[in-house]
Amino acid sequence: MSVTAPKGFLAAGGPLGIKPGGRSDCAVVVTSDYKAVPCAGVFTQNKAAAASVQISREHLALSPYMSGMVLTSGNANAATGEVGRRSARALCETVGAHLGVDGAQILVAQTGLIGIPFPQEVAVAALPQLLRELGGDEEASVRAAEAILTTDTKMKTALVEGDNGGFLVGAMAKGAAMLAPNMATMLALLTTDAHVEPKVLHALLKEAVGDSFNRLSVDGCTSTNDTVVVLASGKAGPASPDALGLALQKACDSLAAQMADDAEGATKVASIIVTGARSDGDAHVAAKKVAESLLVKCSLNGEDPYWGRVVSELGSAGVAFEMDSVSVAYGGVILAKEGIAVGHDEGAVRAHMAMRHIEITCDLGIGEGRGVATATDLSYGYIDENRTTS
Amino acid sequence: MSVTAPKGFLAAGGPLGIKPGGRSDCAVVVTSDYKAVPCAGVFTQNKAAAASVQISREHLALSPYMSGMVLTSGNANAATGEVGRRSARALCETVGAHLGVDGAQILVAQTGLIGIPFPQEVAVAALPQLLRELGGDEEASVRAAEAILTTDTKMKTALVEGDNGGFLVGAMAKGAAMLAPNMATMLALLTTDAHVEPKVLHALLKEAVGDSFNRLSVDGCTSTNDTVVVLASGKAGPASPDALGLALQKACDSLAAQMADDAEGATKVASIIVTGARSDGDAHVAAKKVAESLLVKCSLNGEDPYWGRVVSELGSAGVAFEMDSVSVAYGGVILAKEGIAVGHDEGAVRAHMAMRHIEITCDLGIGEGRGVATATDLSYGYIDENRTTS
Repeated sequence: MSVTAPKGFLAAGGPLGIKPGGRSDCAVVVTSDYKAVPCAGVFTQNKAAAASVQISREHLALSPYMSGMVLTSGNANAATGEVGRRSARALCETVGAHLGVDGAQILVAQTGLIGIPFPQEVAVAALPQLLRELGGDEEASVRAAEAILTTDTKMKTALVEGDNGGFLVGAMAKGAAMLAPNMATMLALLTTDAHVEPKVLHALLKEAVGDSFNRLSVDGCTSTNDTVVVLASGKAGPASPDALGLALQKACDSLAAQMADDAEGATKVASIIVTGARSDGDAHVAAKKVAESLLVKCSLNGEDPYWGRVVSELGSAGVAFEMDSVSVAYGGVILAKEGIAVGHDEGAVRAHMAMRHIEITCDLGIGEGRGVATATDLSYGYIDENRTTS
Repeated sequence: MSVTAPKGFLAAGGPLGIKPGGRSDCAVVVTSDYKAVPCAGVFTQNKAAAASVQISREHLALSPYMSGMVLTSGNANAATGEVGRRSARALCETVGAHLGVDGAQILVAQTGLIGIPFPQEVAVAALPQLLRELGGDEEASVRAAEAILTTDTKMKTALVEGDNGGFLVGAMAKGAAMLAPNMATMLALLTTDAHVEPKVLHALLKEAVGDSFNRLSVDGCTSTNDTVVVLASGKAGPASPDALGLALQKACDSLAAQMADDAEGATKVASIIVTGARSDGDAHVAAKKVAESLLVKCSLNGEDPYWGRVVSELGSAGVAFEMDSVSVAYGGVILAKEGIAVGHDEGAVRAHMAMRHIEITCDLGIGEGRGVATATDLSYGYIDENRTTS
């Protein structure tokens, strides 16, 4: 169970004909009584934002109460101009008509290739059949979670109990490439039965996203379509902001970890931990710079503990840095101290590098700031996945 | 002929024992009368700057007149602390002793792996033999140019006639990876027989570097060792700053093009031309963002004219951008106009993408700013070259 586990939600997933071969490409999640509930969204910062992002922003600007969301995969509906915006609106209106609510009470998220006209006619014609299948059982939530996948190899869902079972947070996401610390081609929808004001919900979501998805780097590219939305039915009664924030954070952390594990072509997932920075902000910037480095990603792929590249990235991250103060450890084994190589247990490092999860700790030695980023390696598989769209 | 073509320079190149197997790893270029001449240098912005960069900066801060330069390959002498700085100084002092000048009148540049102790004793012991081979002929300049190569597959040299033959600029460089718009693991030494004041020379060099090496992106990484130096013997008499600037620019352009062509694992070299930006600065930032994009690099490798990724990078470049105003052309064929796909000659685009040199023009449609960046593709070869250091 994921998005339908919290009280008050229905889901459906199936094919609209966007993807070829009748593959599943559309998920719908709505409140079970079709009423609008507190909602918050965080979207890509890319100025080439997709039509779906533009329309969802438009709807949320009108009101932070929503009855549901429609998510499609197989076509990004980005770089599609006014025609694309009409298509995104048509999807919302079709869902709204089924529920008997205004189309502006529905959000939309889309993912896939950029610049390809969206097959609005086909999709809108097929949508009513899918809406008739809305259900609150596990199967419905699985079908919804599967429908939003693109190059993902695994479904990504999370379920978190908040406040000792006082409320639930369910979540589903897709994301396997173009993941970058300013979000990713990633769509995530969270549901909760906690009661919460929209403003509080937005603040809690923003924080959860900043500490999870935004720390993940697969390739440093910022997608046109990134969308994270949470709907709160309120059916479990009031929840403290702290408890809800913690639950949202756990759900986002889990989804981000699943994305890193399923990143296109990745054979390694590395946590880059920067300590001793001038500030937490500096530490995050430095950790991201290391995580996004092509050369570091190549070294991860080759299981080579080449700390020199890590130091080079720290030195060019644009943050306070003293060469003679930096230490670097792989899997807890210190390879460099005060800026130069030190003798170490090479067997232990080799064993650590052979694991799928690698930990690189960089102590800048000049302050108390701490930050973490997650990196995947660069492999033949990544190139294979991305060299052509066909 | 390259660095010894301008009047007043001698060169040598050969093995010091830094690289294994007796491979050539050291170049020396000095003025033929050993006198100090106007000199300028531009160095990496990386705060983890190598010992050689620190020492060269130190020497140039004492005086902008130099008698020569020693360049070594096979060990970056970076992240080597005070011991590394002593090694870099020892190389300068050994050259200075041979010429009968102070070691501070010699600059030093080094390239290779980071964090490995530099074999100072071996190198300094072998250097005097190499210095006895200093010569002004073509063979000497070729030996020098070959000695600085690392993973380069080709020697990189340039010779430019300035002011209708009034003076010459000779140049040699190495650089095949870790190339990024804030310079690269690239070393370049230019010589000229033009007479010029050090301050003017520095300004002209800085401009030439900004318009050439700094526009090149192989992997977005900024090396610890980047160094570009010019020595001006003055033996051809005074030159106008305009004429000298033009000649330096031509030499740097040629070296940068040779680097892009020889980039590790590259099968494609793409010029990213951004026009119609709010300012030239914006255009450069946007062009670099596209050039550094992993996804764009993958598309180049796959000969896929996926303009959607180009637009996505433009939108996340942090510059003024209007989705509905952007046009993208590959090889002069417009694929997207006013932000959406347009019909085009697919055969012509396919033929262009099959070439080694690809041209992507992005018209932002909101101003007069123009900028260019050079990108290489991402290939299996790049990963092979960089996954391990052994």
